[in-house]
Amino acid sequence: MSIAPIDKPTIPVAIVGPTSYTGLFLIRWLRLHPQAKVTYLASQRDQLPNIAEEFPQLRGVCELQCRPIDPAAIANEAELVFTCLPHVAAMEHVPSLLDAGLKVIDLSGDYRLKDPAVYEAYYKHKHSDIARLSEAVYGLPEFFADDIAGADLVSNPGCYPTAAALAVAPLVKAGLVKPAGIVINAATGVTGGGRRPSPAFHFPEANEAFGPYNVPGFHRHQPEMEQTITAVAGTPTRVLFVPHLLPVNQGILETIYLDPVDADLTADAAYDVYEQAYGDEPFVRIRNELPNISHVRDTNYCDLTARTAGGKVIVFAAIDNMVKGASGQAIQNMNLMFGLDQTAGLL
Amino acid sequence: MSIAPIDKPTIPVAIVGPTSYTGLFLIRWLRLHPQAKVTYLASQRDQLPNIAEEFPQLRGVCELQCRPIDPAAIANEAELVFTCLPHVAAMEHVPSLLDAGLKVIDLSGDYRLKDPAVYEAYYKHKHSDIARLSEAVYGLPEFFADDIAGADLVSNPGCYPTAAALAVAPLVKAGLVKPAGIVINAATGVTGGGRRPSPAFHFPEANEAFGPYNVPGFHRHQPEMEQTITAVAGTPTRVLFVPHLLPVNQGILETIYLDPVDADLTADAAYDVYEQAYGDEPFVRIRNELPNISHVRDTNYCDLTARTAGGKVIVFAAIDNMVKGASGQAIQNMNLMFGLDQTAGLL
Amino acid sequence: MSIAPIDKPTIPVAIVGPTSYTGLFLIRWLRLHPQAKVTYLASQRDQLPNIAEEFPQLRGVCELQCRPIDPAAIANEAELVFTCLPHVAAMEHVPSLLDAGLKVIDLSGDYRLKDPAVYEAYYKHKHSDIARLSEAVYGLPEFFADDIAGADLVSNPGCYPTAAALAVAPLVKAGLVKPAGIVINAATGVTGGGRRPSPAFHFPEANEAFGPYNVPGFHRHQPEMEQTITAVAGTPTRVLFVPHLLPVNQGILETIYLDPVDADLTADAAYDVYEQAYGDEPFVRIRNELPNISHVRDTNYCDLTARTAGGKVIVFAAIDNMVKGASGQAIQNMNLMFGLDQTAGLL
Amino acid sequence: MSIAPIDKPTIPVAIVGPTSYTGLFLIRWLRLHPQAKVTYLASQRDQLPNIAEEFPQLRGVCELQCRPIDPAAIANEAELVFTCLPHVAAMEHVPSLLDAGLKVIDLSGDYRLKDPAVYEAYYKHKHSDIARLSEAVYGLPEFFADDIAGADLVSNPGCYPTAAALAVAPLVKAGLVKPAGIVINAATGVTGGGRRPSPAFHFPEANEAFGPYNVPGFHRHQPEMEQTITAVAGTPTRVLFVPHLLPVNQGILETIYLDPVDADLTADAAYDVYEQAYGDEPFVRIRNELPNISHVRDTNYCDLTARTAGGKVIVFAAIDNMVKGASGQAIQNMNLMFGLDQTAGLL
Repeated sequence: MSIAPIDKPTIPVAIVGPTSYTGLFLIRWLRLHPQAKVTYLASQRDQLPNIAEEFPQLRGVCELQCRPIDPAAIANEAELVFTCLPHVAAMEHVPSLLDAGLKVIDLSGDYRLKDPAVYEAYYKHKHSDIARLSEAVYGLPEFFADDIAGADLVSNPGCYPTAAALAVAPLVKAGLVKPAGIVINAATGVTGGGRRPSPAFHFPEANEAFGPYNVPGFHRHQPEMEQTITAVAGTPTRVLFVPHLLPVNQGILETIYLDPVDADLTADAAYDVYEQAYGDEPFVRIRNELPNISHVRDTNYCDLTARTAGGKVIVFAAIDNMVKGASGQAIQNMNLMFGLDQTAGLL
Repeated sequence: MSIAPIDKPTIPVAIVGPTSYTGLFLIRWLRLHPQAKVTYLASQRDQLPNIAEEFPQLRGVCELQCRPIDPAAIANEAELVFTCLPHVAAMEHVPSLLDAGLKVIDLSGDYRLKDPAVYEAYYKHKHSDIARLSEAVYGLPEFFADDIAGADLVSNPGCYPTAAALAVAPLVKAGLVKPAGIVINAATGVTGGGRRPSPAFHFPEANEAFGPYNVPGFHRHQPEMEQTITAVAGTPTRVLFVPHLLPVNQGILETIYLDPVDADLTADAAYDVYEQAYGDEPFVRIRNELPNISHVRDTNYCDLTARTAGGKVIVFAAIDNMVKGASGQAIQNMNLMFGLDQTAGLL
Repeated sequence: MSIAPIDKPTIPVAIVGPTSYTGLFLIRWLRLHPQAKVTYLASQRDQLPNIAEEFPQLRGVCELQCRPIDPAAIANEAELVFTCLPHVAAMEHVPSLLDAGLKVIDLSGDYRLKDPAVYEAYYKHKHSDIARLSEAVYGLPEFFADDIAGADLVSNPGCYPTAAALAVAPLVKAGLVKPAGIVINAATGVTGGGRRPSPAFHFPEANEAFGPYNVPGFHRHQPEMEQTITAVAGTPTRVLFVPHLLPVNQGILETIYLDPVDADLTADAAYDVYEQAYGDEPFVRIRNELPNISHVRDTNYCDLTARTAGGKVIVFAAIDNMVKGASGQAIQNMNLMFGLDQTAGLL
Repeated sequence: MSIAPIDKPTIPVAIVGPTSYTGLFLIRWLRLHPQAKVTYLASQRDQLPNIAEEFPQLRGVCELQCRPIDPAAIANEAELVFTCLPHVAAMEHVPSLLDAGLKVIDLSGDYRLKDPAVYEAYYKHKHSDIARLSEAVYGLPEFFADDIAGADLVSNPGCYPTAAALAVAPLVKAGLVKPAGIVINAATGVTGGGRRPSPAFHFPEANEAFGPYNVPGFHRHQPEMEQTITAVAGTPTRVLFVPHLLPVNQGILETIYLDPVDADLTADAAYDVYEQAYGDEPFVRIRNELPNISHVRDTNYCDLTARTAGGKVIVFAAIDNMVKGASGQAIQNMNLMFGLDQTAGLL
């Protein structure tokens, strides 16, 4: 669509690591964006593919040739770069990209956990860029829009923590629920595991299957959830996170169990808190119906539904792990960093 | 296979409501049973089909013609009848089948809840056979084998309650976990919803989808869980049950969160309790690995795995909803009622 | 997106029968269209739903209330109407919608077959609007763009015939293949069967399943294929069409076997013909790689790949049955009817 | 089940390569076999797993430790060995297993093609055991039962060729259809591709997807089909084979298009030929209804359905690729080699 009015300039953007699923989704969504354009694809592979060979669905849509990760060359053709590299690889490249004058939105886990010791404990690797770690802004726009707008380096949140923080933080902040004993029972589609083939994601193993996949309490996203909820709520908060693998391509559903401070708490009270927190947010849908990942598929929405039963508050949060949980949220962050309407290209 | 030794007689059995999924699974599994044979299929339909027209996969396997539900005629050709009717319809037929001298295993919900008031509250129908209700034995062999052995009417447990009771009851009984605040987060394959087409089970709606499907705390299986756990543990127990629908054909996974009585409780202690409860049980597999519904698919096993984290005991229970959760358990009950090894035809 | 330049007016459109899958896809795609806007949803249901109750994924996207099918009222708020009704119902409403001054794009089968006798033979219903039938333009833009541009009534092609005609017609027209003995072996996702629950589309029946579903040679789409290919090629052409049902939501793949006129025919010769026929067409991708329905999912593309082997020309055609096979093509037709770029809102 | 009468000895069998899907299916089906018992699992891996670690579903079912491939040790504990190795690896081990006195059923492609030159052309490897190649009996019991009964080395047929030969050979032999221009359009579940993870079988790529996967005419199973049909029919026969990948775990459907010798041929004539060929065969179901892979799932049946239309004979053949297409047929062959009823353990 070449219909962007003349007075709205187009942002040239680069993607480092475009052969990932997050790369694919960025390319597809940015194509619909009225004010951004992908100009550079940079890969760390030895054999640099044309992106349409890698993803045949991109034939005729985007046929850029991948080029090496050369910060100066990228900076010559782009103002912003999305880094879609695995952790560790990300923090090896982000500093030089920033030094080359680019804004960076990093989709890995490398800049999410503020405490390097926690990072090391969960990612099993020493953090190599602690200086940037403290500068990086956590890119959850519903909570940190102002900081994101002024940032050079945005750390795009994990998929599960996006849904969990949006669902839990306002309730803790409002004092409705206890900041401990929170159970986050979650399930994700298989794209959440990335594009590298492995036995767990081999079709005959993942199809017609369902089960938990990490020792409860040991997933990297658990400290990230706690960090964000604690920061937003202003109260140290602990969660127990148990992820499961669903036989679908995309989607996350979190079924969250919280203990109310007041035993008589109603779902209406939770809805009131959500309305106050998100009434103006374009990507949080406060819904009365029970949710389904199919309702948010291929959208940047986070759907929230609340109930009370059995002495618990039960909150359901649904997102598309590839969109609000990854590439869509990255574009939302880009919009904020460049002064655009945060919904540009996303609604 | 006609290899059953001569001194082991064959039990002739009937199925009422064979055009259901539970009927189909009974037919398929009973075909492999060395000492039982399906002799009569009785349907309440106006047009009585040959069962192989109804289920083309049964061509050459079982081509019985369905006949009317005539208790005397059934009793003429069978000693036991499995009733696979919807609730309400079941309790309309069970009394006359018993009166005709048949043993009955009922797979509906009609004889599960001992308190008629609870039945009425959850099934929205007045119970019409309260006399039989109190006589019916709840057919969960791991807890009630002796009663089942002597019963004329066995009420086959619900799918979710089978897994929940096996997972929770021993822990409550042993005093390891609190009998309240128990969260049973569960997911089932679509056969759990029966064979009648409906919007929720229409392929394009259920495929690539996942979500909760009942108001938390209002599913009929919740009071059934509480009744069984309370009976086995000897302690009034309350659970919060939240079911979800999975895009698979068969399988139930329950992820259960319990509060330990002693904060230092280890998973090993839970495993010890399970070993004592189920060490000799052929269909409970106490496993250290994380479970998956694919591990129990088309088997009569219930897999149990325990962990501790975040101040909670987390127990995973996996069954095939059509086998241990329905037809397989019904055959296990039949074996007990006729003095056979309870594994006959099931391993 | 309110970024359409001022000099491009917005077309107000209505959808009759919006609670169908074709209705849903029209609503979603039209939302992204820079120059069209859905203003009226008309349903023949007794209970008129808000469309977001019917399709929860539309919350916040489109929350229009359905209204009765009142041609005058529709004409008051729209210039064009998409009719997404079942056949027979469509031809009951199309005449009055046209009479009210609306342009109509009909997505049913009612106006596709030019010969009323053939219609009656395949749809088992007498055609009630023969006058309009001869006026209706068959909306396959790659062949009939000029006629579409001037039409008041466009009959949107069937999903299978769209792929078949695009794949076969140029080869017959160029004299490369024989106009008889053409085998169209095809498979579709389940949305192709509509939104009404039925045993064949019940999740446990359609999942992990695959099979043919119509007596070969008797599907309504076969005469439609022959009519279009014959018209485009100028040679009477006969095909044998065998459809299968795939356990996926969206997508059609046709594997087409043709007899070459010249036994030495190469795939290159077929590609040359395709290049001449479609070199400038934005929605036909002539591809060398083997196709997959996943490559065209949620796009308006038709992918074509050719091979020769075993004395046959083999052509693969892939489309998304809901997009190029239904709602996307309908929008492409709308664009032509209103003088817009035919790709508006579709790329 | 230990109910085998005393006078029927149990055959001790070994599996070489048990960590494959064919190995898994052999273990599961042999467990139900009244006269065979798996005594030895031999793997070429460096780390020899317990088979229940490799396949958690086997916990409590089979927990044998894998051991090295030592022919003498295997011969000490078994009379028959199933080799489930990849091609090339198979022919490296088969000779020494035979020399150790074992009967061998080889499930690889190494002994299927009688002409070493054809083998080399399609498997891209020189055949290293030509002597055994000519002795090996092709294990399709419906055609070669007598030879199988006397064989020491049986080459278990490929999955696709099993269905194709059963469907086509009788029709060619009877002179009903032409032995050329036969189109075999086929689709398989993903287990057909083996257990090694790869991009094409990565869940997000194979799910919601469907497409052809080999250059038409170049799959290794094409010459195997032609060899078998030619041998059975006594007429040199050529086929065009086009395989597709289905998003299901198990199942093959072949939709086969043949040219009748007599244009007036009816489906009844084809059915007559099938009745004569397979009337007594326990695993071929001649069916009038349209087939589905779900009808043969987890069975050793091959379902055949015939139609005529558009001047063609259309035959549908459905099998479970893992059962009649691999491990089930291997057991059927074992039964024949040991003088058992060929259905033992399979019905």
